[in-house]
Amino acid sequence: MKKSKRYQQGMEIIKEYEDKSDTPAYSITFEDLMELDSKLEDYIVEFAFGDIYSREGLTHEEKTLLTISSLVTQGLEPQLRLHVNTGLTIGIPPKKIVGAIIHLLPYTGFPRVLNALNVAKDVFSQRGVEVGKK
Amino acid sequence: MKKSKRYQQGMEIIKEYEDKSDTPAYSITFEDLMELDSKLEDYIVEFAFGDIYSREGLTHEEKTLLTISSLVTQGLEPQLRLHVNTGLTIGIPPKKIVGAIIHLLPYTGFPRVLNALNVAKDVFSQRGVEVGKK
Amino acid sequence: MKKSKRYQQGMEIIKEYEDKSDTPAYSITFEDLMELDSKLEDYIVEFAFGDIYSREGLTHEEKTLLTISSLVTQGLEPQLRLHVNTGLTIGIPPKKIVGAIIHLLPYTGFPRVLNALNVAKDVFSQRGVEVGKK
Amino acid sequence: MKKSKRYQQGMEIIKEYEDKSDTPAYSITFEDLMELDSKLEDYIVEFAFGDIYSREGLTHEEKTLLTISSLVTQGLEPQLRLHVNTGLTIGIPPKKIVGAIIHLLPYTGFPRVLNALNVAKDVFSQRGVEVGKK
Amino acid sequence: MKKSKRYQQGMEIIKEYEDKSDTPAYSITFEDLMELDSKLEDYIVEFAFGDIYSREGLTHEEKTLLTISSLVTQGLEPQLRLHVNTGLTIGIPPKKIVGAIIHLLPYTGFPRVLNALNVAKDVFSQRGVEVGKK
Amino acid sequence: MKKSKRYQQGMEIIKEYEDKSDTPAYSITFEDLMELDSKLEDYIVEFAFGDIYSREGLTHEEKTLLTISSLVTQGLEPQLRLHVNTGLTIGIPPKKIVGAIIHLLPYTGFPRVLNALNVAKDVFSQRGVEVGKK
Repeated sequence: MKKSKRYQQGMEIIKEYEDKSDTPAYSITFEDLMELDSKLEDYIVEFAFGDIYSREGLTHEEKTLLTISSLVTQGLEPQLRLHVNTGLTIGIPPKKIVGAIIHLLPYTGFPRVLNALNVAKDVFSQRGVEVGKK
Repeated sequence: MKKSKRYQQGMEIIKEYEDKSDTPAYSITFEDLMELDSKLEDYIVEFAFGDIYSREGLTHEEKTLLTISSLVTQGLEPQLRLHVNTGLTIGIPPKKIVGAIIHLLPYTGFPRVLNALNVAKDVFSQRGVEVGKK
Repeated sequence: MKKSKRYQQGMEIIKEYEDKSDTPAYSITFEDLMELDSKLEDYIVEFAFGDIYSREGLTHEEKTLLTISSLVTQGLEPQLRLHVNTGLTIGIPPKKIVGAIIHLLPYTGFPRVLNALNVAKDVFSQRGVEVGKK
Repeated sequence: MKKSKRYQQGMEIIKEYEDKSDTPAYSITFEDLMELDSKLEDYIVEFAFGDIYSREGLTHEEKTLLTISSLVTQGLEPQLRLHVNTGLTIGIPPKKIVGAIIHLLPYTGFPRVLNALNVAKDVFSQRGVEVGKK
Repeated sequence: MKKSKRYQQGMEIIKEYEDKSDTPAYSITFEDLMELDSKLEDYIVEFAFGDIYSREGLTHEEKTLLTISSLVTQGLEPQLRLHVNTGLTIGIPPKKIVGAIIHLLPYTGFPRVLNALNVAKDVFSQRGVEVGKK
Repeated sequence: MKKSKRYQQGMEIIKEYEDKSDTPAYSITFEDLMELDSKLEDYIVEFAFGDIYSREGLTHEEKTLLTISSLVTQGLEPQLRLHVNTGLTIGIPPKKIVGAIIHLLPYTGFPRVLNALNVAKDVFSQRGVEVGKK
């Protein structure tokens, strides 16, 4: 089926966040979900990326920091893993990702922040990046 | 009593976020709280501002966007009002604050975002700023 | 500007939920938000209603019960007020709305349920409906 | 010890939700908990099932949809696994369970919904049911 | 209708938490709710008080501190108001209630704690108690 | 580098909560985090322990019960594991920890409580303590 303009716009954004050297972070998830519902992929690509991520006025880095803050606050670890990953891909230094998570200490308390740092540390380790060096 | 170096560092940060033309946003709250506990002001000034907000690596604008994202996610309206206010004070355009809140739609759903936009709209109105003009 | 097919689909759904005897519940909110962002109305009408509420497989009543459950769980009172209202409009008996909220006691605890019942009671009173009679 | 009328009422409800072909979903959990506190089983059976699930006015299917919505919203995966399971047992088609979870996208955002769909997909796979076929 | 033994047990516990000099804190709420559902009062009195609050092993003060901690964490202000009130009634010094709320700073962050202290301060003021004096 | 007085105060508190017979519960976590940020350990030791846990007016047991209540309410299982552990170390009987978690049933609902009891049961089993015997 021919995909909508919003879908194409969404896919372009997704490509900007994908790790070039690696299996695309999003496509795996999509394939798993497509057997459950025929529209779900469209909602993600068209709405989350085509509508929201393609908005002007915020840089990719700012969008990722906002996203990470919401995910840390909710303790949503699978999605945090994804967005720490895409954060590195678009060029946010690991040290800055760590600083963004630590900034939330007064707003979420220590447990949410420490659990999020464990996720970040794991992603850094998988990607072979070191805090303070990249 | 002589205040700690961290307290002084915290107060300097707070001053950078305060609306110069107006009653300082934070001091009112402090006076109300001081009668309940003699240490509470120190925790806020020394830890939240002296330790956390004074960290290097993120701009004031990035810190405020991270803070707003966490507050929107938790539906913490009194603090959101404060940080939308300080966001304007440090020079974030109202349109960008609106965009940051709208970016959270895929992560918190519509109700949290719409309730937060109502708070932002109210702050903009009180400060006499208009979205898209400043 | 010509509105999309999804927008038209969304507006049709919204009309089915609107109280015929009264100012449309949604349009007020829209007007308030349109000055903040030119796309926000589209996101609500196209995505929330055109994409999601227009899906087949669940009745309007089932969609409203699912919505109410999520809003009670999050303590989102302004939206709960709206959806208790639209629930009455599409014909859910007030007694059933009360029963749906009470069913959540083992999953959210008493405070969320009691606060939600206060909202429901207020909506019933404004609409002049009585529990157990309609 | 002789069990209360509410306990018997609760156990009857629980049996209606249990997978006949399989080890009862609830009894395992009960045995694990009984060593920690002698009353806990009674609270679950008497209050959650004897008092709440035995109420009239909502069908088993409606009660399960309300329950699933609250659990998705809170990200409570072990309980979601249980209630997707009992949903299948009382005859909710897997496609409808998927639709109910997807309906929550505008109210909880994508991460809660996607994590819940992963749980549902796993339960479907364990029970050998396929979406769109049953 | 003759009330159950659990109901009577629950009412006895409630009386121990009530302010003797004043309109009972709970009965007002009950009357409001009774018109919505004939069983709701029983659930509160029998389960919350007859079953849970009447358990042995924790003092009234410990039960109230646990309750306050959960309510502060969830930002449930109407119920926090009630339990700060009953806390004073059973003899917890206001200074200790303040200390219990402040203890949560590392676990919930500042906003939840500051909003809770505002509620506590308001209750203290209504009851004419002063922190550090009673 | 010479550590602050608050750091020393914090470390003294931490030692009181540590299992004497075992690897210190906190130090492991610290080492993992120190490579991510040079200040994080100070925030935990100085603020969470030096400032907050060292406050007068609440016993170690009361502080731990308040902490457990907040963690159960948020479903923060790694931290709950830690504080059930330190609770045992400072001498709270396992039966009382179970009772404290069960007390939260009316405030958080069953799922949070049952998931927390599974964590507690696991800690008891690892430490070889039995409910009702110690």
